[in-house]
Amino acid sequence: MDKIYIVGVGMTKIGRFYERSGRELFVEALSKAIDDAGGLKPKALVVGNMTSSVLMEQDSLGALLADYGGLRGVPAFKVEAACGSGGAAFYAGYSLVKSGLADVVAVGGLEKLTENLTSAVTKALAQAADAEYELFYGVSFTGLNAMIARLYMNKFNYTREDLAYWALRMHEYASYNPYAQLPRKTTLEAILKSPVVADPLHLFDCSPIGDGAAVAILVRGEERAREIAKAMGRDVLVEVKGVALATDSVDLGSRNNLLALESTIKASREAYKMAGIRAKDIDYVEVHDAFHITGYLALEDMGFAPKGEAPKLWKEGRFGKGDKPEVNFSGGLKARGHPVGATGVYQIVEATMQLRGDFPGYKASDPEIAATQNIGGVGTYTTVTVLKRT
Amino acid sequence: MDKIYIVGVGMTKIGRFYERSGRELFVEALSKAIDDAGGLKPKALVVGNMTSSVLMEQDSLGALLADYGGLRGVPAFKVEAACGSGGAAFYAGYSLVKSGLADVVAVGGLEKLTENLTSAVTKALAQAADAEYELFYGVSFTGLNAMIARLYMNKFNYTREDLAYWALRMHEYASYNPYAQLPRKTTLEAILKSPVVADPLHLFDCSPIGDGAAVAILVRGEERAREIAKAMGRDVLVEVKGVALATDSVDLGSRNNLLALESTIKASREAYKMAGIRAKDIDYVEVHDAFHITGYLALEDMGFAPKGEAPKLWKEGRFGKGDKPEVNFSGGLKARGHPVGATGVYQIVEATMQLRGDFPGYKASDPEIAATQNIGGVGTYTTVTVLKRT
Repeated sequence: MDKIYIVGVGMTKIGRFYERSGRELFVEALSKAIDDAGGLKPKALVVGNMTSSVLMEQDSLGALLADYGGLRGVPAFKVEAACGSGGAAFYAGYSLVKSGLADVVAVGGLEKLTENLTSAVTKALAQAADAEYELFYGVSFTGLNAMIARLYMNKFNYTREDLAYWALRMHEYASYNPYAQLPRKTTLEAILKSPVVADPLHLFDCSPIGDGAAVAILVRGEERAREIAKAMGRDVLVEVKGVALATDSVDLGSRNNLLALESTIKASREAYKMAGIRAKDIDYVEVHDAFHITGYLALEDMGFAPKGEAPKLWKEGRFGKGDKPEVNFSGGLKARGHPVGATGVYQIVEATMQLRGDFPGYKASDPEIAATQNIGGVGTYTTVTVLKRT
Repeated sequence: MDKIYIVGVGMTKIGRFYERSGRELFVEALSKAIDDAGGLKPKALVVGNMTSSVLMEQDSLGALLADYGGLRGVPAFKVEAACGSGGAAFYAGYSLVKSGLADVVAVGGLEKLTENLTSAVTKALAQAADAEYELFYGVSFTGLNAMIARLYMNKFNYTREDLAYWALRMHEYASYNPYAQLPRKTTLEAILKSPVVADPLHLFDCSPIGDGAAVAILVRGEERAREIAKAMGRDVLVEVKGVALATDSVDLGSRNNLLALESTIKASREAYKMAGIRAKDIDYVEVHDAFHITGYLALEDMGFAPKGEAPKLWKEGRFGKGDKPEVNFSGGLKARGHPVGATGVYQIVEATMQLRGDFPGYKASDPEIAATQNIGGVGTYTTVTVLKRT
């Protein structure tokens, strides 16, 4: 059975790029990834994106970005799975390589949000929720996450301050990341005093709106991956050992459990099984902290902390440098930024670079196994990947 | 190498369903497909859809439809490739089965258009074009196809009447199809006298706006497919012999050739090669006639007619009952209807039923090999499938 490798990665800085179109951002990331793969030309393109239809008035994004990226003619399509679009695109792209339909596949993520009014972006992002059973009643996406956070705080006896340490550390890490949207440290006081967005979530508990694009290039076969790595002067390969996508209801009202993301539990179990590992084998992980609460839930639901204890362990300093796993040294969605449909691909690019040892920001402690967790909606989708340095 | 089979199909009638939501339509099609597969439960769902983000204010469609269809938890995502979303979803779904990521995959298509204002639908469909280089200037999607039609008429010396025979025959076929949106015959006079939409395209040269959903269930392995067929009292299997997706530029201004769809030429060649067949081996085909011009281009670009001659051959009666290939006995997009992102799946469902001999409308002459061609944009995407009765 041919193994699948990530042989090239590229990403743009995340920010507010009023002067650059979505296709320009994507071509920057794709070109970097192709260069990073020694000039290897992808034979197919899968693009993760959530809001191009609504905010860019653009469908046909897959073909459009293939064409602008110099790949006219290749199989291409867009995958939408809300904020989990990037992870789902990776799942689809992995499948194309594995199935033999294409032997070199670029998986990209793009989101262009900031040139729209905040009200338009808020509405577009709310479409991750159920239009008929949630959105219709006026709840925003942040509001739904706020309800989960409140429930979690009540159930496990946490205060706002207990949870605020997430953002503190993300800003610290992001300050080292040249691709981060908010590369600056903050203080506990600033987090606590930041304005309310949807109680109990304050501004600094939430990820920012940003534009960005990221691309990872997958190939089949160890020999080919080794040739590319050698040509690029890299002495390690990054193999995709596991990838799984799981779903849950869109609306929260019909969930079995609001204190855990069942899609994350399912996807992580399946990805670990496929990779032949257990949670304790993972050295490094990038989790989807669109809000502090989703970061904590990820740590619990992926098997790194007992239910209800992630914030306590986090506050005590766990999951930092030298611990296992080390978490979100990119700065996370919270401070690296969250270009929605691109986020899942950013995580994979970052984890790949951490495994190769060339991530340009805060460096993990020589990890051998890394994982990423990308969610869409309030855990409506979760894609978990397991990557291994070989 | 395990072979891939279509073991269950289902679809809704296409129409204006003001009283039924998109999820209801989809569940009807999915339930029918599951029943048709002897109750087999899909382990993954890929949904082709173009406009849910804009017209239904709903993202997360993959998980939403999985959940409402009784498949909560399975891997699911939406594929968008404009009007070619259904075909691209099939390509992705085939890949999931072939790769081994899932052994039973439902590929669905859904579109819910008609409860919106026509102006909103026209704008949503125009997003298949390039937002920055075409749409910005106010051209509609029909307008772009009209320009191609005009160029084709000028180049190959055809009149409006020469091209009008497409619609005439589609309405004839649709009159037998219980799933068709416009199941009624028409006359050449009615077609020619119908109001102008975008010159030279008149109303009856264009496909209607409609709601509908269709689902096909794929499995890996001949033994399993045979067990299902046997349990359902069917003595034939339908194997997916070839599937290919190709793209072209979104904007027409940068095309190499406006008189042919290069994505269709490329996808059909690749799908035939994968299936080990040639165009002349195909007995039955469903092509994407969103406008008469795209129907004629499909026949030429798939290798069934020399360039510039499809309308002439069509007018002479070719491609009808007893010819090879027989074309669009469903009534085509023109009269069966065009629920955009579902259309590619409708074609596959119809071709499967023609191969099995249980299509409830106008019946093909005992075909052994069938093909479908689904385009997105003005040939920005083409997916071609080759199905074989075994």
